[in-house]
Amino acid sequence: MASWIKDLRNRICESLAQLERSCAHPLAENLAPGVFTKRPWLRRTDSGRSGGGGEMSILKNGRVFEKAGVNISTVSGEFSPLFRQEIKGAEKSDGQFWAAGLSMVIHPRSPLVPAFHMNCRMISTSQSWFGGVADLNPAIPFQEDTETFHSVLKNLCDQHPEVARYPLFRDNCHDYFYIKHRDRHRGVGGIFFDDIPADDSAFLFTQNLGESFFDLYPPLVERHMDNPWTSEQRAIQLHYRGLYAEFNLIYDRGTRFGLMTGANPEAVLMSLPPIACWS
Amino acid sequence: MASWIKDLRNRICESLAQLERSCAHPLAENLAPGVFTKRPWLRRTDSGRSGGGGEMSILKNGRVFEKAGVNISTVSGEFSPLFRQEIKGAEKSDGQFWAAGLSMVIHPRSPLVPAFHMNCRMISTSQSWFGGVADLNPAIPFQEDTETFHSVLKNLCDQHPEVARYPLFRDNCHDYFYIKHRDRHRGVGGIFFDDIPADDSAFLFTQNLGESFFDLYPPLVERHMDNPWTSEQRAIQLHYRGLYAEFNLIYDRGTRFGLMTGANPEAVLMSLPPIACWS
Repeated sequence: MASWIKDLRNRICESLAQLERSCAHPLAENLAPGVFTKRPWLRRTDSGRSGGGGEMSILKNGRVFEKAGVNISTVSGEFSPLFRQEIKGAEKSDGQFWAAGLSMVIHPRSPLVPAFHMNCRMISTSQSWFGGVADLNPAIPFQEDTETFHSVLKNLCDQHPEVARYPLFRDNCHDYFYIKHRDRHRGVGGIFFDDIPADDSAFLFTQNLGESFFDLYPPLVERHMDNPWTSEQRAIQLHYRGLYAEFNLIYDRGTRFGLMTGANPEAVLMSLPPIACWS
Repeated sequence: MASWIKDLRNRICESLAQLERSCAHPLAENLAPGVFTKRPWLRRTDSGRSGGGGEMSILKNGRVFEKAGVNISTVSGEFSPLFRQEIKGAEKSDGQFWAAGLSMVIHPRSPLVPAFHMNCRMISTSQSWFGGVADLNPAIPFQEDTETFHSVLKNLCDQHPEVARYPLFRDNCHDYFYIKHRDRHRGVGGIFFDDIPADDSAFLFTQNLGESFFDLYPPLVERHMDNPWTSEQRAIQLHYRGLYAEFNLIYDRGTRFGLMTGANPEAVLMSLPPIACWS
């Protein structure tokens, strides 16, 4: 898991950097192609012992991507007594855990290019399981993008009938990204799973979700990245990002997991948009 | 309580509108003085019965204030079984409550003018109590402002020795606005109290906190509002606002109270900045 996510991270970053170089939007005349910079981090533990860590790769202020973050981490240690009540297989044990994952959030500059979120993870307590999510977050949704995105995910799930169910995982995603206080959903969906017992089939499916990035996202970026947009569309995007930040800070389990296990806050909150508005 | 907060709200809004009219910053040549608009809202209840409501007064895109919101509300009903565990006097009762309060958040346009937050509230379950908070949130702190602000609050508390203790309330405020995951505090403090049993002395102190607005904030605004600022200072302000939004969405009890009791989300999240950045 740990070596695969590192290799995938490298290939994802190269794919995004390539989009930066090929951008033909008029902005490209004034902006250099964005590049990723890496920042390693170590997990803080109360005991002072090492609890693993990770590496953030961040691209900022690019032509295509206003902010793109890909974070990998491999952490271990002990859940706090309070937090272990929330985690499967940790409630009645000593709270020991190990977790590894790749998490990425992409906030494009153009309001026509959808934002994207993906996460692949393995967690071990007294049990071990895989989880993952991929969801599309357009400020201005295009039906064709939504269809492409879901079609790739359906094909992926259909190829792994032993562990994956597209209708279930799609519905899980829909439910997960519900913003209760606003009675609306974030994004146009995707898939979400969190409880697949760790075996070879589950690992292969999780890997193939990660590898599907190249079919899920770059084609949608290329579809829109060179098109002009208006200031009204930009305003819609900035308010959509406000909603995105609300979800992450109030509801997102990954954010909560990170903040509760002493991960680097910069890495956990890498998902926040570079700039957002509220009315 | 309910009639006092309405009257105070009117006087606070007029005071802020007056600052808008008197602004002599070069921006005033291109921007009309900001004015407040009122939006009433009703609380949603699961049973469909009325549960009270409130009135938001919002000023947007002014010369001095990029966004200023003053919300008053008087709500009643029944806490959800889960939420009543968190509320004093509701744990073992039927969860009936009544609450009234004024809450205000001011995000100035200039990074030199501090943001400001104040809340005065009364809550009744099987017990009744008053609570309040006033805290200063400069993106770029000035020692003189911090001293003025705390000196007004110390004088206020010293005039109500039967219910108020400045050192305790100041320390409560310092602790309350601690952002654990970033290991830093929001703002330069103020006072915070939440458990003063409802009697005449407590009501008078809470009222006088509200009335102290006119000494606490307009003098600090006038001190800085006509001064020029740089784009670097503006960037510092926008990132400070990101931190402000993080606190409100992750930790703030008032935000949580509002979202959990079905208040209008626009009113609860009125506190969020008009525009914020994360690095």
